[in-house]
Amino acid sequence: MPVDTMVNILELAGLYVFATSGALMAIHKRFDVVGIVVLALLTALGGGVLRDLVIGDTPPAAFTNVNYLVIPMVAAVVTFFAHPLVGRLAFPVLVFDAAGLGLFCVTGTLKALDFGLGSLQAVLLGVTTAVGGGVLRDITARETPALVQMDTDLYSIPAAAGAAVVVAAHHTDLPMPVVATCAALFVFMFRIVAMVRHWTAPHAWEPKGRTG
Amino acid sequence: MPVDTMVNILELAGLYVFATSGALMAIHKRFDVVGIVVLALLTALGGGVLRDLVIGDTPPAAFTNVNYLVIPMVAAVVTFFAHPLVGRLAFPVLVFDAAGLGLFCVTGTLKALDFGLGSLQAVLLGVTTAVGGGVLRDITARETPALVQMDTDLYSIPAAAGAAVVVAAHHTDLPMPVVATCAALFVFMFRIVAMVRHWTAPHAWEPKGRTG
Amino acid sequence: MPVDTMVNILELAGLYVFATSGALMAIHKRFDVVGIVVLALLTALGGGVLRDLVIGDTPPAAFTNVNYLVIPMVAAVVTFFAHPLVGRLAFPVLVFDAAGLGLFCVTGTLKALDFGLGSLQAVLLGVTTAVGGGVLRDITARETPALVQMDTDLYSIPAAAGAAVVVAAHHTDLPMPVVATCAALFVFMFRIVAMVRHWTAPHAWEPKGRTG
Repeated sequence: MPVDTMVNILELAGLYVFATSGALMAIHKRFDVVGIVVLALLTALGGGVLRDLVIGDTPPAAFTNVNYLVIPMVAAVVTFFAHPLVGRLAFPVLVFDAAGLGLFCVTGTLKALDFGLGSLQAVLLGVTTAVGGGVLRDITARETPALVQMDTDLYSIPAAAGAAVVVAAHHTDLPMPVVATCAALFVFMFRIVAMVRHWTAPHAWEPKGRTG
Repeated sequence: MPVDTMVNILELAGLYVFATSGALMAIHKRFDVVGIVVLALLTALGGGVLRDLVIGDTPPAAFTNVNYLVIPMVAAVVTFFAHPLVGRLAFPVLVFDAAGLGLFCVTGTLKALDFGLGSLQAVLLGVTTAVGGGVLRDITARETPALVQMDTDLYSIPAAAGAAVVVAAHHTDLPMPVVATCAALFVFMFRIVAMVRHWTAPHAWEPKGRTG
Repeated sequence: MPVDTMVNILELAGLYVFATSGALMAIHKRFDVVGIVVLALLTALGGGVLRDLVIGDTPPAAFTNVNYLVIPMVAAVVTFFAHPLVGRLAFPVLVFDAAGLGLFCVTGTLKALDFGLGSLQAVLLGVTTAVGGGVLRDITARETPALVQMDTDLYSIPAAAGAAVVVAAHHTDLPMPVVATCAALFVFMFRIVAMVRHWTAPHAWEPKGRTG
């Protein structure tokens, strides 16, 4: 029970920061209050809704637990008024975002496994849960999705690594709450280090003697 | 029965004008006939398809009632030939679009309630039904969605207000056909007035002394 | 049985070339390896996933047969290293892409008919299966979808013609394996000729005396 409660609190915290990142982008693009609410909801809920549509769990969790709608709306309202302050809190926001990344890739992977999907599929859906909302945010705001851009700090690769850990442990007798916690922490740390050290993913291999 | 027939006729009229707005954007962007048909279909049907996928009503209504496909295709063909005339009819098109907005947000909200979704969720899906197609049209045409842009006349806020009226009445004994009609008319009038008076939604609050 | 095997091999070949086209676009846009994998998966699987969500066959085939994930990932890795060579193979890639177009529009149409959808709906879903992935690729890469652009060689129209042939034959006693093979070949030839002769779809009709 305390584990469930902790996961729940972390999940709502993750939704809050994901929604904040959507609201901040909307304000940066000078969208109006409708745009702020839409991007907050899309960013926070998009990944989970995509996952639930794919596994066939309709209505998606975002439409059955009202907290999942209320929390992003609260984040949108707070950001609407407090964005100059929130903007100055860029690093704390990124830290919470890393926590959300770790949490949602783990819970998404576990849900996909629960619904009987295979290992590779579960990893893909775990990553989708964690990064799908950001992709929808970027597409709606007419930005090139950060997911695919060159020279952004690693984001989906920590999530994929964490999802792979969960899937591997699923085939063993290890206690899942412990594994899930460790995997989420691992993703969190991996992402934080990637940000601090500016680790980026390679771009396409070039034969020697060619210029980039 | 006459109410059903009236709703049906209004619904097809709404699909027709939504499809026309998609076809006009395609022509404006100099897309070919495939682009005209694709944007007409996306604009007219996208919102309802998104709603039906979320509530789990598959195949979506757009794929079970053939009129839902035929009407937007007719609109695409008519616009293909008559676009110089249709372009001059900008205001009538906007008036019918406002009627579609009112109708689809009400029918979308009612369908979500029918499928057992909560109040806030039903409002969100009602608005999605009414505005989702336009967002898909804008994204496909590489326009910033009118939904989120600053300084566009209110569009989704009238829809949200109408959806909220329907949800509130759902918890009372008021006769739903009357409520639905009034809510759709209210959305229609609200949108028309917002267009005429150029009402816009606020953008993010700025502390005093800062420039926009 | 040999027919099934042949369809399976062609399907995997089609996924491979669709994924390659996604990976090549990602490299052209200078996306990193994550972007290459994401665009490869989206391009190869997006159309089929959209079809399966609409007909309510969840999880979509792309999430139940692991080959559907592995093949595009292999294509992404090969393109990552071999893209200068693959780029020089532009015409062979387009030929395989035409084969994928023919195959996927036929299999998509047949699946929609199997799930009881109507004729026009089945044609639309057949075309969606074949072209949906490319649209998602273009939207994610912030390109105007080739589907709607003017003056691109015919792509969706051959697919629509082939899907219509399948639907027409579905109402007769003709043996479906023969019909499906002929329809796929017809789409393939139609697309190849359209490329070679640079056939394009018309853009909106203009009254005489006006300039384009």
